[in-house]
Amino acid sequence: MRPIVALLTDFGGQDHYAGAVRGAVLAACPEATLVDIAHDLPAHDVTAAAFELAACYRTFPPGTVFLAVVDPGVGSRRRALALEAGGYRFVGPDNGILGEVLADYPGAPLHEITNAGLFRHGVSVTFHARDVFAPVAAYLAKGLPLADVGPPAADPVRLPESLPRLVGAREWEAEVVHVDRFGNLITSLTSAELAVVLEAVAGDTNALVVVVAEVVMPWARTYCDVTEGEACALIGSSGRLEVAVNQGSAARVLGAARGTPVRLRAFGIYGQGPVL
Amino acid sequence: MRPIVALLTDFGGQDHYAGAVRGAVLAACPEATLVDIAHDLPAHDVTAAAFELAACYRTFPPGTVFLAVVDPGVGSRRRALALEAGGYRFVGPDNGILGEVLADYPGAPLHEITNAGLFRHGVSVTFHARDVFAPVAAYLAKGLPLADVGPPAADPVRLPESLPRLVGAREWEAEVVHVDRFGNLITSLTSAELAVVLEAVAGDTNALVVVVAEVVMPWARTYCDVTEGEACALIGSSGRLEVAVNQGSAARVLGAARGTPVRLRAFGIYGQGPVL
Amino acid sequence: MRPIVALLTDFGGQDHYAGAVRGAVLAACPEATLVDIAHDLPAHDVTAAAFELAACYRTFPPGTVFLAVVDPGVGSRRRALALEAGGYRFVGPDNGILGEVLADYPGAPLHEITNAGLFRHGVSVTFHARDVFAPVAAYLAKGLPLADVGPPAADPVRLPESLPRLVGAREWEAEVVHVDRFGNLITSLTSAELAVVLEAVAGDTNALVVVVAEVVMPWARTYCDVTEGEACALIGSSGRLEVAVNQGSAARVLGAARGTPVRLRAFGIYGQGPVL
Repeated sequence: MRPIVALLTDFGGQDHYAGAVRGAVLAACPEATLVDIAHDLPAHDVTAAAFELAACYRTFPPGTVFLAVVDPGVGSRRRALALEAGGYRFVGPDNGILGEVLADYPGAPLHEITNAGLFRHGVSVTFHARDVFAPVAAYLAKGLPLADVGPPAADPVRLPESLPRLVGAREWEAEVVHVDRFGNLITSLTSAELAVVLEAVAGDTNALVVVVAEVVMPWARTYCDVTEGEACALIGSSGRLEVAVNQGSAARVLGAARGTPVRLRAFGIYGQGPVL
Repeated sequence: MRPIVALLTDFGGQDHYAGAVRGAVLAACPEATLVDIAHDLPAHDVTAAAFELAACYRTFPPGTVFLAVVDPGVGSRRRALALEAGGYRFVGPDNGILGEVLADYPGAPLHEITNAGLFRHGVSVTFHARDVFAPVAAYLAKGLPLADVGPPAADPVRLPESLPRLVGAREWEAEVVHVDRFGNLITSLTSAELAVVLEAVAGDTNALVVVVAEVVMPWARTYCDVTEGEACALIGSSGRLEVAVNQGSAARVLGAARGTPVRLRAFGIYGQGPVL
Repeated sequence: MRPIVALLTDFGGQDHYAGAVRGAVLAACPEATLVDIAHDLPAHDVTAAAFELAACYRTFPPGTVFLAVVDPGVGSRRRALALEAGGYRFVGPDNGILGEVLADYPGAPLHEITNAGLFRHGVSVTFHARDVFAPVAAYLAKGLPLADVGPPAADPVRLPESLPRLVGAREWEAEVVHVDRFGNLITSLTSAELAVVLEAVAGDTNALVVVVAEVVMPWARTYCDVTEGEACALIGSSGRLEVAVNQGSAARVLGAARGTPVRLRAFGIYGQGPVL
């Protein structure tokens, strides 16, 4: 098995931080293959990191080790965690960054990273990504048993969940959880929750409209189903409800950001029953 | 042959999209070497992508597979293409992104990607880069015959070409086709077209000036041939005529952008003949 | 030994430049492992590049070759250099970018790159990163003796050093040398210089305050030792004195930038002796 380490941080590309992490992984496992997920996450934005990690880890080959570090509490008493789930391994601070993966695999083996013998010499209190997480990820990629990083850990920090709520007999409210580079609005409505809504309209998406900032938009299959500049709602690549503007930025056109409410409204005979 | 897959997208570094594509390539070909060309292209800018791809593919080792995806029409009926040219292979949407490579190799084998057996399960209509192009690029890198992706394709979409035109006995007009990170203006005048102009002045570049936004500038060998803050024209690293400001941004100093006219003027005895 | 080439440039991610360099390394050494340090350095900022390189090269495995190119003088008579120091090799222009590494290893073997047999065909005067430094780095990674790049070089360009100075019996002045992505202020006070200051207060950091833009802040162990939004000084991950704001940007809160003065003040019985 080729050792693969995938990196997700808020370190950006203007400093040496991401480079130092890469160097530290290679120093501990020179044969590792490094893969970037993203490094330009908004600084300190654990919620965004948790979302991005959850949205892509399943596309990687089994055995991949994920180093996910957005760590505003570095050097405080927050724990460092290692997780084994779905054929992958994950390391990151205990601040919710692994929360969506943990929700996918409740009861998956979770350990606190305490084995200082794995760390770099002279750990900096402000750079655990380089001195703690990078070498541990490298050793895990080489096959270190998970339990060797430290004792089992319970009660990891969870981020608040955004659950859709029924706001009338025929209307559900969710919210924007992420705005991507294109200005697409990724909502809190997951594929499982969408399935319940769709069942309520007997699968007829023509009976649904989506409302963001008082703009009513149709349900579409893909961006190009509406005219250039028009808004639509669709099932995005992560399986969630997404709001987009064809060839444009929904965030700008609709004045939306993370937390903006998104309503689904059923009409006609479908507007009857409580569903979610 | 080591399988190399080079990536060019407009996915940026703040979302998981580029990471998901990398993961999807590795899932189909774990031994692949991934190389980034650029991911911060302006969103939806197919013209920029076509330019950047053309400017660098020849620097890669033979056998490299290029995954070039700027794809505002994803999920529409636009075709997905695979091309074999110059010892390389390319995959991308049929929107002009491969246009400059196709112009370099007219008649090169071009196929439509239709073999769904190569795709990831559950193709998202909004993320063909991950679900269609990534696995196909991976299999091509492993040696899949080009014809196995689907039937031959004809009439690929071409972007409009910017040809220089003679605007007087002694003057040619071209335009800015790209502004790079440093504010350098890359023009539509290719090395072949420049050769014709230079022949008209018997190779004497001192007989040429370049005019952008009414600023007249000399022909230089490199940026430092003019004083700091001054503009000059030179043959850039892609062989095209380029306008630069020493230690500064020509785009800002000259107020230029893509599409801004660029004039070459010959004077003295050279200002006689029609050439292009 | 697996050939590793680490890249540090100001090429950004919107053009093909970094991609072309990667392709050129692989063309000369297809088995190379490419690692990015950073590419979004401010354009032409040699000082930033020298700082970032110095801050991370020791985290890489021995044998790594560093290609460090921020090169506003490309095509001028500035020399191209290759350096062997600390078990690593470095290539870059002679403009100070290698200055901090040279300061770490005075007398390390330094050669001018003149052996055109190693270069790509048709060297562009504006893109030595691709045509000169990339292939040379690749061959060095494959084991080329350093002396084969060209003759020994003396008197490399050095950047001005920022030394702390004593501005009173009990006060030292340093300056900000780098602002990172998070707005943290990295100062000119190195770990060796800090050791002298700390000795002067008998190691009692409670006897020290740091002053930036008239804001007096305590000495902390990590960011979280102060309230959210508060400023503190601490020893950063590169061993230097660093000024930070918990969960915020010190650069914005304090209105600081590169060159902003940073004062350390000892009080009580420690405010006696000259130290530095």
